[in-house]
Amino acid sequence: MAATTTRRSVVRIAVGAEPAAAPDDLAVESPLVLALDGAAIATLMRTPGHDIELTAGWLVVESGVRAAQDIVLLRACREDDTDRVHITLQPGVRPPRPRAFITSAACGVCSADVLDLSLLRTSRPHTDGWRIDREVLATLPDTMRLQQRAFDRTGAVHAAALASATGELAAVREDVGRHNAVDKVVGNALLADALPATDRLLVVSGRVSFEIVQKVVSAGAAGIVAVSAPSSLAVDLAREHGLLLTGMVRGGRMNLYAGDQLVG
Amino acid sequence: MAATTTRRSVVRIAVGAEPAAAPDDLAVESPLVLALDGAAIATLMRTPGHDIELTAGWLVVESGVRAAQDIVLLRACREDDTDRVHITLQPGVRPPRPRAFITSAACGVCSADVLDLSLLRTSRPHTDGWRIDREVLATLPDTMRLQQRAFDRTGAVHAAALASATGELAAVREDVGRHNAVDKVVGNALLADALPATDRLLVVSGRVSFEIVQKVVSAGAAGIVAVSAPSSLAVDLAREHGLLLTGMVRGGRMNLYAGDQLVG
Repeated sequence: MAATTTRRSVVRIAVGAEPAAAPDDLAVESPLVLALDGAAIATLMRTPGHDIELTAGWLVVESGVRAAQDIVLLRACREDDTDRVHITLQPGVRPPRPRAFITSAACGVCSADVLDLSLLRTSRPHTDGWRIDREVLATLPDTMRLQQRAFDRTGAVHAAALASATGELAAVREDVGRHNAVDKVVGNALLADALPATDRLLVVSGRVSFEIVQKVVSAGAAGIVAVSAPSSLAVDLAREHGLLLTGMVRGGRMNLYAGDQLVG
Repeated sequence: MAATTTRRSVVRIAVGAEPAAAPDDLAVESPLVLALDGAAIATLMRTPGHDIELTAGWLVVESGVRAAQDIVLLRACREDDTDRVHITLQPGVRPPRPRAFITSAACGVCSADVLDLSLLRTSRPHTDGWRIDREVLATLPDTMRLQQRAFDRTGAVHAAALASATGELAAVREDVGRHNAVDKVVGNALLADALPATDRLLVVSGRVSFEIVQKVVSAGAAGIVAVSAPSSLAVDLAREHGLLLTGMVRGGRMNLYAGDQLVG
């Protein structure tokens, strides 16, 4: 597996002391080219590792893929000094739209389409009567933190994981990109035939913006638990789509932004 | 001017205490549609405010725009309940390429092109003999912090600013997106006829990834001062392009990742 961290010699400076060269661990960031039926369709800047999961999760929000059986093949390789994942989808599965088409058009396509998350939803976020205790919610970021190995070394990578109402975390994934960490987690669930992620919460180490809510709706999860704060749009969309959204979860405290009725 | 923060009622939870409803200030995130000669070309999710600067800075990395005179018109308006900026470029100025074209193609375009920052460079990052004192470097994040008004209210927006070697900051800009905050700063400089930003440093509140280095090279700045850490790629590219790169700048300490010879 490719390295997720690497070492560089840096100069450490402290005011009042002599600068000193020292080794420093950095999070690796490098390009991954996604190719559909042989044609490159996107280049993701990501932290290497779990590239197949990253691709699978990226497909969940960018294409019609919602189950492992929608994918014929995901094959990771290194060609021309570049990491690639080759994708083949089942006939009839909507392929990823070029980004330019999603966010632009001379007519008709505008931000209303970008914002219409109901197009992404294929399931209900939680079963009737599903609830989670606030004591469990409060532990989730710390539980995830214990598995953030690249963060331990670099202090500079985001993490994500799916959690159950009893506090169990599935695979914890890390990446220099917040969205990539989430894609890896969603891809892990997809490949384990565990989507839609009904009754499970996405735990994230950072802030919650529109795109994180978009990914949670695509994955069919019940909500989001974040170490930092959400944007206004993330709160409004979480409320509109019946998600639980809690943020600033630190030291036994948190803010509940959406889904009060889901917390016991 | 549109609001950069907004208030929502949330439930504050502390383990061992009764949950209590309270107002909470959130960073606004909403779509801005960019239209070139009447056709929508991109939708940016951004914090409202300084939309013209945001568009101008976005054009610096996404198109051939390098000076205010390359732009005929930037006009902000609200149409169909959506914020828009209409763009008209001078004839002969390379327009923004659709994103799909930048990151994909059936042949020829691959990550090597994405990574070739020399295509973006039109000037040298610093004049001969330019240097900055480490004491000045150490103060820059704190100086910027004093002007992060949306951060004061929300704790959840990024900031950026351009700084001189004597520690003066030009316009501080904030946004829920790290890249948007940088685009606003670069756009501010463009519209003030202050590009290329030779001998000036970009100060950022967060981490430094590939795209931040890409924007700094496009703007012609001398380097980056960051509160958090850079990725491996950011360090390698900063060294390759002769930039200063310092990170983890906190409490009088910092790591110097590139450009040792530029620091006195």
